[in-house]
Amino acid sequence: MRVLIIAAHGSRRKESNKEVVEMSKAVSKQCAGYEKVHTAFLELALPSIEQCIDQAVGEGAKHITVFPYFLAAGRHVAEDIPDIVVEKKEQYPNISIELASYLGEAPRLPGLIADLLSSEQ
Amino acid sequence: MRVLIIAAHGSRRKESNKEVVEMSKAVSKQCAGYEKVHTAFLELALPSIEQCIDQAVGEGAKHITVFPYFLAAGRHVAEDIPDIVVEKKEQYPNISIELASYLGEAPRLPGLIADLLSSEQ
Repeated sequence: MRVLIIAAHGSRRKESNKEVVEMSKAVSKQCAGYEKVHTAFLELALPSIEQCIDQAVGEGAKHITVFPYFLAAGRHVAEDIPDIVVEKKEQYPNISIELASYLGEAPRLPGLIADLLSSEQ
Repeated sequence: MRVLIIAAHGSRRKESNKEVVEMSKAVSKQCAGYEKVHTAFLELALPSIEQCIDQAVGEGAKHITVFPYFLAAGRHVAEDIPDIVVEKKEQYPNISIELASYLGEAPRLPGLIADLLSSEQ
């Protein structure tokens, strides 16, 4: 079973975290390659990324992809999330756990923003 | 003259801020509706959003759009950036300064993420 974990920063505002969960549901409907799509948070909200990986393993995941839902490679993307993935790969040597490119690297992102702002005018 | 300000969080990592500037340049090439596209930061990096609006006014901007380059409506999107826009509208009553929807609200974002992750498999 393939599981996708959408890993967001997390906020003190519950609405903000709920919004990320809704976005994950929308991704899930359009993303055929994964049996399950979960949402996890680095800070300020639960489940944590560690908890979410544990849960996926408990559910029988054999391949887990962690997707950093971040726009730029600040410390969280460059260090914190990779550190969690390394730690969990050591904990679960028989499970494939991979770190995907973060959202800000998506080649189509500037075009989406340009279209969005053109349509708002 | 129409100016677009892409307002990002800002990071202590210079590479991260540079990355946002490069993204803004890519948006600029694809976004015909604005004569200039600038990048500004809420925290940890300069120019600030306030400085960037001042600069745009100095350059002769008549319409300024502030686009929050954020994924979810945490405090920064819900309060901090709107507060700056309100303050600057009061300071420059003859300039149109508007706050665009933030990136996380873009309807095409879940589809972009689904495509990105499907192609990574």
